Amino acid sequence: MEQRLSLVTLGVADVGRAKAFYEQLGWRGQEVQETVFFQTGGMAVVLWGRDKLAEDSGLADQSPAGFDGVVLAQNVRSRQEVDEIIAAAHAAGATVSKPPGETFYGGYAGVFVDPDGHAWEIAYNPGFSLADDGSLTLPDFAATMG
Amino acid sequence: MEQRLSLVTLGVADVGRAKAFYEQLGWRGQEVQETVFFQTGGMAVVLWGRDKLAEDSGLADQSPAGFDGVVLAQNVRSRQEVDEIIAAAHAAGATVSKPPGETFYGGYAGVFVDPDGHAWEIAYNPGFSLADDGSLTLPDFAATMG
Repeated sequence: MEQRLSLVTLGVADVGRAKAFYEQLGWRGQEVQETVFFQTGGMAVVLWGRDKLAEDSGLADQSPAGFDGVVLAQNVRSRQEVDEIIAAAHAAGATVSKPPGETFYGGYAGVFVDPDGHAWEIAYNPGFSLADDGSLTLPDFAATMG
Repeated sequence: MEQRLSLVTLGVADVGRAKAFYEQLGWRGQEVQETVFFQTGGMAVVLWGRDKLAEDSGLADQSPAGFDGVVLAQNVRSRQEVDEIIAAAHAAGATVSKPPGETFYGGYAGVFVDPDGHAWEIAYNPGFSLADDGSLTLPDFAATMG
């Protein structure tokens, strides 16, 4: 299995509501057959009905829990950008589960939860390299943490 | 908020067990402070204790459910590759929730669930372009589905 990820599909209760939420944050996608596809660099984030996603994956759905065991993250270039995005998500209807603040690794981060319970951390981490196109490259931890 | 994803962090019960599972599938990461980071193209997949991940995100953890509302996917280049990866995941201890089979979109896919309940779809989808480096580009659905 190659070491890469092609899609992250978020199960949602109402595709229109979920699409509107991400559009309010500035994302633009393509809707086809009650599914929304957002190109995100060399992969895609997809919104699809939670019931259909579970069925299609051969899994028994259960009530959305408070924490679904997965956190998505977007690394940004400044503390100010963290504050701005968390504020924009809140204005778009997200719950802020962790207000922006300093992190143990010398960065700054906050977490919002989208209308379907999917958590997004917005983080400024000076130790992780971000290219102009937003591609993230992990550090060589052994070298940097001696 | 830019339209991109930097990290997908999977909450796991036992970091060592989870790391061993992904290593058996051929992935190689860096472990630091009980966290495992896998570079996956221009982003990273991270394994971290589910309890720590929930706490760090300001979320109340609950028992792992049968379906966590998120499905990760890796698109591959052939039906045979789908079969091979699903078989390898099964051999590594995954549950196969959906055996490989033809899909409604003219592709071929199967789903396995990792030891912590995170679902991975392995899919051959001739409509989604894969570059040599594995980057995925969505089609222009309006043009292709007329």
